[in-house]
Amino acid sequence: MGQGFFGYNPPKFAIDAAKEALDRVECNQYSPTKGRPRLKKALADAYSKSFGRTLDPETEVTVTTGANEGMLSAFMGFIEPGDEVIIFEPFFDQYISNIEMPGGTIRYVPLHPPKDGATRTSPASEWTVDFEELENAINSKTKMIVLNSPHNPLGKVFSKEELQRIGDLCVKHNLIILSDEVYDRLFYVPFTRIATLSPELYERTLTVGSAGKAFYATGWRVGYLIGPEHLIKYVAGAHTRICYSSVSPLQEAAAVAFEQADKVGFWDESRNEMQQKMKLFCEVFDELGIPYSEPEGGYFVLANMASVKLPADYPFPPHVASRPRDFKLCWFLIHEVGVAAIPPTEFYTEANAHIAEDYLRFAVCKNDDVLETAKERLRGLKKYITQ
Amino acid sequence: MGQGFFGYNPPKFAIDAAKEALDRVECNQYSPTKGRPRLKKALADAYSKSFGRTLDPETEVTVTTGANEGMLSAFMGFIEPGDEVIIFEPFFDQYISNIEMPGGTIRYVPLHPPKDGATRTSPASEWTVDFEELENAINSKTKMIVLNSPHNPLGKVFSKEELQRIGDLCVKHNLIILSDEVYDRLFYVPFTRIATLSPELYERTLTVGSAGKAFYATGWRVGYLIGPEHLIKYVAGAHTRICYSSVSPLQEAAAVAFEQADKVGFWDESRNEMQQKMKLFCEVFDELGIPYSEPEGGYFVLANMASVKLPADYPFPPHVASRPRDFKLCWFLIHEVGVAAIPPTEFYTEANAHIAEDYLRFAVCKNDDVLETAKERLRGLKKYITQ
Repeated sequence: MGQGFFGYNPPKFAIDAAKEALDRVECNQYSPTKGRPRLKKALADAYSKSFGRTLDPETEVTVTTGANEGMLSAFMGFIEPGDEVIIFEPFFDQYISNIEMPGGTIRYVPLHPPKDGATRTSPASEWTVDFEELENAINSKTKMIVLNSPHNPLGKVFSKEELQRIGDLCVKHNLIILSDEVYDRLFYVPFTRIATLSPELYERTLTVGSAGKAFYATGWRVGYLIGPEHLIKYVAGAHTRICYSSVSPLQEAAAVAFEQADKVGFWDESRNEMQQKMKLFCEVFDELGIPYSEPEGGYFVLANMASVKLPADYPFPPHVASRPRDFKLCWFLIHEVGVAAIPPTEFYTEANAHIAEDYLRFAVCKNDDVLETAKERLRGLKKYITQ
Repeated sequence: MGQGFFGYNPPKFAIDAAKEALDRVECNQYSPTKGRPRLKKALADAYSKSFGRTLDPETEVTVTTGANEGMLSAFMGFIEPGDEVIIFEPFFDQYISNIEMPGGTIRYVPLHPPKDGATRTSPASEWTVDFEELENAINSKTKMIVLNSPHNPLGKVFSKEELQRIGDLCVKHNLIILSDEVYDRLFYVPFTRIATLSPELYERTLTVGSAGKAFYATGWRVGYLIGPEHLIKYVAGAHTRICYSSVSPLQEAAAVAFEQADKVGFWDESRNEMQQKMKLFCEVFDELGIPYSEPEGGYFVLANMASVKLPADYPFPPHVASRPRDFKLCWFLIHEVGVAAIPPTEFYTEANAHIAEDYLRFAVCKNDDVLETAKERLRGLKKYITQ
């Protein structure tokens, strides 16, 4: 239940397409650096509707080696030494090094949890932005802000109102928006893309997606960015210098998968299935009286383990004992109940880590029998819970 | 005959292995950042013999997203702003930006062509290093030197003696050696790896390889570096930050391919086949009296077109007319005879471009019928040749 990879295979139409691609000479050789034409076309077609505009596959889409390298390409394309980038805490940990590689400086703005997060289950939307804090973090060196919705690890889907307020600040201060939307097919409340809120926001936004997340294939390393030509061209330029081109047969397979997905009802099926997994798994927290942030999107859930009493004399090894409480909770869960989770203070700077030290992140993108086994094991926590 | 991708498919055992991997859940999800254990093991096994030592798959091998991102990871791992890196001209063009990304400065050392290259076909070994020039390029800021053997575009395989002299300088001046050996299975004269010349050279050398080049699959993006643990760990660290992990099903396929290749005699077959293609193609230059550098390795051949007289009034477009003569030769060949080549001054700084302006690079990794068609078309050059 730790790392966010899938416990099952990509859909048959994607696997079949990959196998067919492997039989074609041109699908085993270098692809154009910006991506295979068929994939760019499939992405433009698949995203035009939700962007409310006809995307040009030649200029408004570029393919990268996973979303990770896509975001690095964006930072490499725009950030120069001394430029500042704003990211919200908790953050996906790769952002940090990827901003620092071209010499960027990071300003952290924490998302604030519900005050009663330790005692009450509440929607992930109750993790909120303090807009005064956000604007205070902006200065003349600020070049870019990174958004992530649906959010890892919070499961928060930023509301239209929140995105509008963030967007207004970006227009006011002339910031580029890098919107990490790799979980964009998994939302359980209305999902808004900041790029769609106005033409002027589209003009300053790079939206990041992932075929690996969309099609249960995190090992395929096919990501993409969508945005206006004047931004995309720099991302594509940096990508060429980082990876040259991306993996050909799996780009072709991703193209076919995007062509097929709507037709076969895959997106609805995928969303419903993940929401079911989330409900199924969270039952055990309800049973145990462990509060959690009800995810509005994605496949992670944060449970608040404040009520789990760790034995005072528990023999944590030094490298765990020296870390925040969530590391101890994690170690304890693995060794005492046999369930792995991720300690979310990994996604925080030291100054703000205290916010998350009672939480653990669980990934539910696993087979139902694995979820049931994990639940059964987690019931073993009962004796450690003090209400 | 331009870009160096293959005109035919990877061997069946590699394709079959890729298809099998696609059916396995774990082969479609994230791989460990340093590479799949099976691939690291297969690489250590495949390379231990030619390295003359037992390589440790856990510490002396790391997998990257193609050799290109592997070299970037090496530069990112070791180069800090102000550090200098020595590269020979002509160079693979990606080196330049990859060294400059972490702030490195490049010192160029030209390889010198045979003086009578315009009138006589001679082995690629006649492109030589001026060792005084090389040592003069080294100073206190020099951190690294990049070698490439078999060499693109020259087809030169550096001799043991040349490598020993280069290696001695690297020991003397404490340089790290990044040895790009992506054509290491294609050599037609004895091939030496600089890392094998002495234990102290092994300790300072990172050797770069490519499953894409080895198995005719340039679009698979599976590269690797081999070297001592104290160097490999920094490459692996940088790679994690650049791409996180590399493409899983094709790593698994590459593992199987390395396991199989020796057993089925693939390396010998591959080398013989490419050497045959080289001979077959170069016949047309012999016929036309166009001298070339006889390749000792790889799949590129440089032909010297000094004797091809371009019509004085030929309507070159401005972006071609303003470039060195090889660009004009290239344009002329495409439009007048229908054969594409690469102008090698692309692999030179402006100061040294004159060395290569009469040459064109041809890639022979194409089907024999394509080679025959290209030869037939090249015969159309005859009327432009002045002896």
